[in-house]
Amino acid sequence: MADLIVGIDIGGTKVAGGLMTMKGQLSRSSVVPTLAAKGFKTSYGQITNLIAKLLRRAGKRNQVVGIGMCAPGPLDPRKGLVISAPNLPGWRHVLLAKMVSEKFHLPAKVENDANAAGLAESLTGAAVKYRHVFYVTVSTGIGTGIIINKKVYHGKNGIAGEGGHVTIDYRSPYRCGCGTLGCIEALAAGPAMARRARVRLEQEHTTPSLLRDWTGGNLSRITPLMIEKAAARRDPIAYEIIEQTGFYLGVWLAGMITLLDPEAIVIGGGVARIGKPLFDKIRKTILQYTLSPRFAAHTPLLAAKLQKNVGVYGAASLFLPAGVKAEAEF
Amino acid sequence: MADLIVGIDIGGTKVAGGLMTMKGQLSRSSVVPTLAAKGFKTSYGQITNLIAKLLRRAGKRNQVVGIGMCAPGPLDPRKGLVISAPNLPGWRHVLLAKMVSEKFHLPAKVENDANAAGLAESLTGAAVKYRHVFYVTVSTGIGTGIIINKKVYHGKNGIAGEGGHVTIDYRSPYRCGCGTLGCIEALAAGPAMARRARVRLEQEHTTPSLLRDWTGGNLSRITPLMIEKAAARRDPIAYEIIEQTGFYLGVWLAGMITLLDPEAIVIGGGVARIGKPLFDKIRKTILQYTLSPRFAAHTPLLAAKLQKNVGVYGAASLFLPAGVKAEAEF
Repeated sequence: MADLIVGIDIGGTKVAGGLMTMKGQLSRSSVVPTLAAKGFKTSYGQITNLIAKLLRRAGKRNQVVGIGMCAPGPLDPRKGLVISAPNLPGWRHVLLAKMVSEKFHLPAKVENDANAAGLAESLTGAAVKYRHVFYVTVSTGIGTGIIINKKVYHGKNGIAGEGGHVTIDYRSPYRCGCGTLGCIEALAAGPAMARRARVRLEQEHTTPSLLRDWTGGNLSRITPLMIEKAAARRDPIAYEIIEQTGFYLGVWLAGMITLLDPEAIVIGGGVARIGKPLFDKIRKTILQYTLSPRFAAHTPLLAAKLQKNVGVYGAASLFLPAGVKAEAEF
Repeated sequence: MADLIVGIDIGGTKVAGGLMTMKGQLSRSSVVPTLAAKGFKTSYGQITNLIAKLLRRAGKRNQVVGIGMCAPGPLDPRKGLVISAPNLPGWRHVLLAKMVSEKFHLPAKVENDANAAGLAESLTGAAVKYRHVFYVTVSTGIGTGIIINKKVYHGKNGIAGEGGHVTIDYRSPYRCGCGTLGCIEALAAGPAMARRARVRLEQEHTTPSLLRDWTGGNLSRITPLMIEKAAARRDPIAYEIIEQTGFYLGVWLAGMITLLDPEAIVIGGGVARIGKPLFDKIRKTILQYTLSPRFAAHTPLLAAKLQKNVGVYGAASLFLPAGVKAEAEF
């Protein structure tokens, strides 16, 4: 019986892969370097080599249901097409699903990484109890996925769900990489947190702060992780930055709730690991900025469950049945 | 054969009703006063009297498929429940669909008015060619409806699609009726246009303007319709207000496209009748504020087709089959 799925997470520096059971359990994961700088042929070769290795591990080929892959956008999941990949030189209009499918004689799918992660959270992660989920990942960028009825909502061109590029401050001095002013990504992602901490410490240039100590006064070295650690040690400026991040995310999520009224919101990514102080501020702000606080108060805000290997989970979950409610393995 | 639908549009001052064929043609519409100030019993009586009159007109009762109703939110369309109705004193937690259904022995449904209008536009109006539509109505408020696969998207609590209350400027000095700062409704609906015109004319208190002339200098008398007419006569300040409205709507719709990637956007309501100068500015701004201008450029921005009686069309369309692609009658 076909009972395994190959999941491949394609990144600019590494390609991660694993085998997932039809119950959503991941095992036998591997990582290889992408070797992106060597161009398309090499990086594509790294991917297919990893797939071949996983298929050998899976044993008889007919045990494998399909090969799911995820990558940062823009891509067209319906056509299995990578339109372009900023971190993968030479990748332009690559019909990845078709190429992989023909090479291995197995069905193959490609999905945007945030969409795939959202799907995985709703099928095997934090939101197994919910059918309609808004997924957010906050790290160096902000990615989102709209899950309706346990499926990724794609829109007309397959590019729906790019909530990180919705502005909450069209007059903002901060322009996002996407070109828009005041996108939530430009205000609340990791680099924006570090920027705000830097600006704040420059303004208050005599105020002592762990962030100043830890960077030896070179404020350009501040990282989101440092802010998290300093806040945990009650550093007032670090705490303020986290509160502000929670405020921005809260304003933005209030709008998402007003618009989409999801059953649950799942927040993943590095910045989300800050945990309670961030989540508390988000919850408080949502109630101030949403149309129906009475309903919003009952929209659970869940921490992502699939942190490690979330990309592999996401990729493999493209072949999971929508009804699966298995527990994830870590 | 059952081939007629009763559509009822419940407003604070009047109740409009009509009979629609299964091909989406509306005929025999009537209007009665709501008599809202006289309380629930009276206003509910006005509604049921109108339904009774339409059913008599329809002839044999078994010709009628159902009774569709729409009202401003908040309401729960799945339960047919009007949660509250600011313009209808005494209406609190009214199980309207059930009451009407039991009284007339016919199926009955209730829907938020903007959702219903969006559905009608996608089934019999401007967007019959499209399955995934974002509908906007701009008048004294901004209402929206998300149509996915020719159906209203409701979300968890039935309150999804309140896009008018998504902020694009959380630092705005303008607080919306919903309590949030910088909602698109607080920036771009009719009252906001009049407010901006007033402020502008007060700033430039010697600049001649048709708006100043028409109001005899009493700027509180400015209406969106005046702004439209003055702009058509090349009044610079009126034109500026329309450009600004188009800019706000463009920023906001750019976010909606980035998030929902609809097949088409339909814009209705009084303000939308301004037409070309407004639509041109919206289109231009969308390209500046969206993640994928290349795709957004191919998302049609359509003027609503169902202007008169849109509420009755909306209400009746709740009983139209999703496949109907009939032409609307005016």
